[in-house]
Amino acid sequence: MDFTFHMPVQIFSGEGCLKDKGERLRALGRRCLIVTSAHAAKASGALDDAMEVLEAAGVTATVFPGIGANPLLSQCQVAAFTAETCRSDFILGIGGGSVMDASKAAAWLAANGSTQGYELMAGALRRPALPLVLVGTTAGTGSEVSATAVLTLDRERRKQSITNPECYARYVFADPRYTHSTSRETTVCTALDAFSHAAEGWFAPGCGNVITAFGERALAMVSGGLYWLTANPGLPDPAMREQLYYGSLWAGMVLNACGTAFPHPLGYILTEEYSLPHGAACAVFLPAFLRRAEEQEPRRAEQFYALCGGRERVLAMLEALTPRLDVTMTKEKIDGYRPRWTGLKNFARTPGGFTPDEAAEVFRSLFLR
Amino acid sequence: MDFTFHMPVQIFSGEGCLKDKGERLRALGRRCLIVTSAHAAKASGALDDAMEVLEAAGVTATVFPGIGANPLLSQCQVAAFTAETCRSDFILGIGGGSVMDASKAAAWLAANGSTQGYELMAGALRRPALPLVLVGTTAGTGSEVSATAVLTLDRERRKQSITNPECYARYVFADPRYTHSTSRETTVCTALDAFSHAAEGWFAPGCGNVITAFGERALAMVSGGLYWLTANPGLPDPAMREQLYYGSLWAGMVLNACGTAFPHPLGYILTEEYSLPHGAACAVFLPAFLRRAEEQEPRRAEQFYALCGGRERVLAMLEALTPRLDVTMTKEKIDGYRPRWTGLKNFARTPGGFTPDEAAEVFRSLFLR
Repeated sequence: MDFTFHMPVQIFSGEGCLKDKGERLRALGRRCLIVTSAHAAKASGALDDAMEVLEAAGVTATVFPGIGANPLLSQCQVAAFTAETCRSDFILGIGGGSVMDASKAAAWLAANGSTQGYELMAGALRRPALPLVLVGTTAGTGSEVSATAVLTLDRERRKQSITNPECYARYVFADPRYTHSTSRETTVCTALDAFSHAAEGWFAPGCGNVITAFGERALAMVSGGLYWLTANPGLPDPAMREQLYYGSLWAGMVLNACGTAFPHPLGYILTEEYSLPHGAACAVFLPAFLRRAEEQEPRRAEQFYALCGGRERVLAMLEALTPRLDVTMTKEKIDGYRPRWTGLKNFARTPGGFTPDEAAEVFRSLFLR
Repeated sequence: MDFTFHMPVQIFSGEGCLKDKGERLRALGRRCLIVTSAHAAKASGALDDAMEVLEAAGVTATVFPGIGANPLLSQCQVAAFTAETCRSDFILGIGGGSVMDASKAAAWLAANGSTQGYELMAGALRRPALPLVLVGTTAGTGSEVSATAVLTLDRERRKQSITNPECYARYVFADPRYTHSTSRETTVCTALDAFSHAAEGWFAPGCGNVITAFGERALAMVSGGLYWLTANPGLPDPAMREQLYYGSLWAGMVLNACGTAFPHPLGYILTEEYSLPHGAACAVFLPAFLRRAEEQEPRRAEQFYALCGGRERVLAMLEALTPRLDVTMTKEKIDGYRPRWTGLKNFARTPGGFTPDEAAEVFRSLFLR
C-alpha cells in the first residue's frame, strides 16, 4: 500500500524529559517567549520546570499567560507582538491544544509581524516561523505532533484551521506528569478528542501502511483509557495517564497524516454556540460517523472495533461519556449552517463522502425538536 | 513505555511518485548534482525519470556516476568537488545504499569544502548540508530514512559510519518499480540486510513504542519476502518487490531509531576482506545473534518469531539464503580484530551486552579451522 510520511517533530518523552535539555534550548537562542494559559502551565508543574531549565541554560524567558480556550486570532497576535517586543528567538508553548495552537500562530506571526493575521490564516506569510518548542499538559489534542492550528476568528467567532509545515514544532517534550493535574471533565473530553482523531483518521483515504500502525496503537491505548474512565468515577493513576497521553500523540500523528472527517466541523458548531468542550463536541457525532463507516468500509470497521475491544463496548462508552446535551434547533437554523458545510475537505474524507444535506439530516436527528 | 522519535524525512511512495514533483525540486534550487552509480540508476529507469522531471521544471542537472559499492570517502569528495564546481544547489542521489550514503557525504561536504573529509567523519563540519533528495533502487539499506552514512576510509580500507541530522534527506521518492531491475543475488542480499536492521533493532534498548510498530511491519513484510525467495528460484513479482521495498523502509526507520547490534560490525570484516555483500555478511552472524537474544530477552524473542512466522522458519531461511562461505582464519588473525571491537556501541546494544571476547568466540566457531 503506497503512502506518504512526514513527521519532522523531534519528540522526547518520559518523566523529567525536559530537565537535561537546557543546551538544546539554548541552541535555539538567547531569549524565549513562553506562551501559556493562566493556570494550566503552573498547576501542571511544567512552567516551573521550564523556567528552571531555561534559567540554568542562560536563556531569558518572558511568560505570556494570555491564551484561553478556543484562542482568538487576536490573542495570538498579542502573543506575537510580545515576542517582537522582547526580541524572542524562539517560542515555548506550555498547555493544552488551545495554547499549543496559539503558540504555532504566535511563532509564525512573530517572524513576520504581529499585524499579519489575515496573511497567517491564508498561509501567506513570507518568513519562516520562529523555532517552536511544545510541552503538552492534556492528553487529547495531539497538537504536539501536527502542522495544524485551530484558531477562532474574532469577528466571525468561528473556528478556522491552518495547516502548514511552518506550524511544526522543533521539539516536543512529552512528560505524562504534566497531565496529572487535569480535572476529570477535561480528562474525559480530551480523551474523547484523541479517540475522535484516531477514529476519523482510521477511515480516511490517506491512512496508509505506517499510519495504520500508529492508528492501531492509538486506538488500543486511548480506548483502554476511555473504558477506565467509563468504569471509574475518579482520576486515572499515573500509568493510565501515561497510556492516555502517549495514545493521544499517536492519535495526533494519525490526525496529522489523514485529517479528520465530519465529526470535527460539526463539533465546531457545538463549541462555538453551546460552549461544549471540543472533544465532547466531536464525540456527539461519532456514533453517526461510525454507522457510516460500517456501511462504507466494513472490513476496516471490523479491524477498528477489534482494536477497540468490540463494537458494543465502543458505543456504550460513547453513550456513557458524552455529556447530555440540552440543544434544540429549528429546521431553519440547521439549514443556515449549509453554506459553511460546502466544499469541506473533512466531508470528502468521510467514508463514502458526506454532503451538506447529510450533515443537516444528522443535525435534525439529534437536535430538531 | 517512554520513547524518542525523530524522522524528519518526507517520504513519497508509489508508482510514478517522482513524476509530478518538479515544482518541489525546483524550490530547492536551479542546479542539481545527480549522484549515482555507473549502471543501476540507468537500468532502474530512475535516472531517466529524474532527468525528465528536472528538465521540465527548469533545473539544470549534472550527473556524477562515479560511486561504486562500499564507497570510498575519496569518491564522495570527488562528488562534492563536482557539486562545488557546478555550483549545485542540491544533491539527488539515485541508487542503493552505497550511492545514497555517498550522496549524504557529498551533500554535506559540498557545503563545506570537498577537502574536509576528516572533518566530515568527525561530524565537525560547520555549515549545514546542501538539500538532499534520495531515490532508492534496492530493497534493503533503508538509507533513505536514516541519518547514517557508511563510508570506507581510503587508507585503512575500513568501513566507518557517521550519523548526523545533516545526513537526513529532505525528500525521498520510494517507487518500488526502481527495484525491479535488481538481480536475484542483490535482491536476496539486500533483503537480508533489511531483515538484519529489523532484527537487530527489535532487541535494542531504544526500541520503544512507536518503533516497535515499525518493527512489526518491517519483520512481517521482509520475512515474507525472504520466504518467497527461499521457496522460489526466480525474481519476485511487482507486488512482492513492493512488499520488500516498503518493508526495507520500515526496517530503516527501526535502524535509524535503534541502531544495529553485533552482526553489523562483524559483517563489515567479511565485506572488507572477503568481498561478501553487506546484507549477506550481516546474515552470517544473525543465528548467533538470535541465540543471544533468546537467552537475554525471551519475551521479546517470542514476539519476534511470531511476527516472522516461527523460529524454525526463520533459521531455515537464514540457512538457505546465506551464501556458503569459504573463509578460514587463524586464532591470531581473529585476535587481531579485538582492537576494533573495543567500545563498540553496536556491542552495547546487543541484548545482555557483547564483549570482544565473545566476538572472537563467534569468529572462532565459524571460521577457525
